[in-house]
Amino acid sequence: MKDVTPPAATPGRAAKSEQTRTLILETALRLFQERGYDRTTMRAIAQEAGVSVGNAYYYFASKEHLVQGFYDRLAAEHAAAVRPVLAAERDLAARIRGALLIWLDVAEPYRPFATQFFRNAADPESPLSPFSEESAPARAAAVAIQEQVLTGSDTKTAPELADRLPQLMWLGQMGLVLFWVYDRSEHAARSRRLVERTAPVVARAIALSRFRALRPLVRQVHELLDEFLPSPRTPPAKD
Amino acid sequence: MKDVTPPAATPGRAAKSEQTRTLILETALRLFQERGYDRTTMRAIAQEAGVSVGNAYYYFASKEHLVQGFYDRLAAEHAAAVRPVLAAERDLAARIRGALLIWLDVAEPYRPFATQFFRNAADPESPLSPFSEESAPARAAAVAIQEQVLTGSDTKTAPELADRLPQLMWLGQMGLVLFWVYDRSEHAARSRRLVERTAPVVARAIALSRFRALRPLVRQVHELLDEFLPSPRTPPAKD
Repeated sequence: MKDVTPPAATPGRAAKSEQTRTLILETALRLFQERGYDRTTMRAIAQEAGVSVGNAYYYFASKEHLVQGFYDRLAAEHAAAVRPVLAAERDLAARIRGALLIWLDVAEPYRPFATQFFRNAADPESPLSPFSEESAPARAAAVAIQEQVLTGSDTKTAPELADRLPQLMWLGQMGLVLFWVYDRSEHAARSRRLVERTAPVVARAIALSRFRALRPLVRQVHELLDEFLPSPRTPPAKD
Repeated sequence: MKDVTPPAATPGRAAKSEQTRTLILETALRLFQERGYDRTTMRAIAQEAGVSVGNAYYYFASKEHLVQGFYDRLAAEHAAAVRPVLAAERDLAARIRGALLIWLDVAEPYRPFATQFFRNAADPESPLSPFSEESAPARAAAVAIQEQVLTGSDTKTAPELADRLPQLMWLGQMGLVLFWVYDRSEHAARSRRLVERTAPVVARAIALSRFRALRPLVRQVHELLDEFLPSPRTPPAKD
């Protein structure tokens, strides 16, 4: 993809373009927080950002695309912040805990916005749903982090589960996000506590998955995941 | 509770009152389906049901209360429909599958309504959330069914988990409801398939929970549930 540069682009223009994109996204996030997602228009975002409405639409085809931009940014910030923890820790429980606590840190400034906006993302028809085709890039980035959590640890995974486990853990993370959206405690203390409590359970379950007595269960779980999760590493089909 | 009859009530009046209540609820559900939840007003419901607006408000203090009435009805229909299956089957996987498939049957007529209305229930602040205090009666009824599923089966549960398992299974059922709301397949075929696939996995996991090697994991899970689920059989505190 990197080779396909628009004809007129130069390094300077590309940087300027990236700046404008970031400016529009940041303005939008600020207005969503201040005025609410539903009440913020593209026109207001453009005006506040000091760009023309046409320019705003050039970078983000709709308000939904702005939220996708937010998802992508959150995933990128998470990937960067999680790197030192994953470099330092081998213990699986510590890696799971670290990755999720850091997600909560990175997401904390957006919590008021996420809470009021969740109503939209929860709509099954919405492109903002974490399961939508539009969310595929942010989803792939999040699954990739879960994969790093697993592969860099000193715990071996049941071979039958290896290809599906990162997706399964991403699903678990979506469960945490759901809990977090409902969490009214200060600094998401309840969500943090849930992570502290869940990480050792998940790590232990993963370690146990190699047990001979659990093989039939692991096989059943794998069949279930094969049927209900999109095939790993394959981007969703486009018509 | 049966002894506390309101002073002026007579059997005839009580039956009439119940009829009016049912009429209002059914009218509301029909209008929610036809016009959408957000666009249906209490005034329109009263008019269609042929009662005064004051009368409608006497039975249901708000539109939200009508949805609670719907939850209660769904729970009651489910409890009645599930009885023969639970009387006939001892096998845990069959009981889990039966209870969930019957829920899908009972809920099917309401699926178009549930789908468009889910947006409201997913709002953490909404009294329509399955986790809200207002939903406690419907939730208790649903947990009680899960308890029957377990206690009538020939599979023994790990004693440490016995008090929490019905709630945990109810949480699992909420996961199914979430899947079902997103399910676009005809007659919720995908959801039914998920039940078929999941029931044996859950039954096997429950049977395995008594295994000595899994005791530490079971203990951790129990501590987690103790901390994060409301105490079983105790209604939520009221101020």
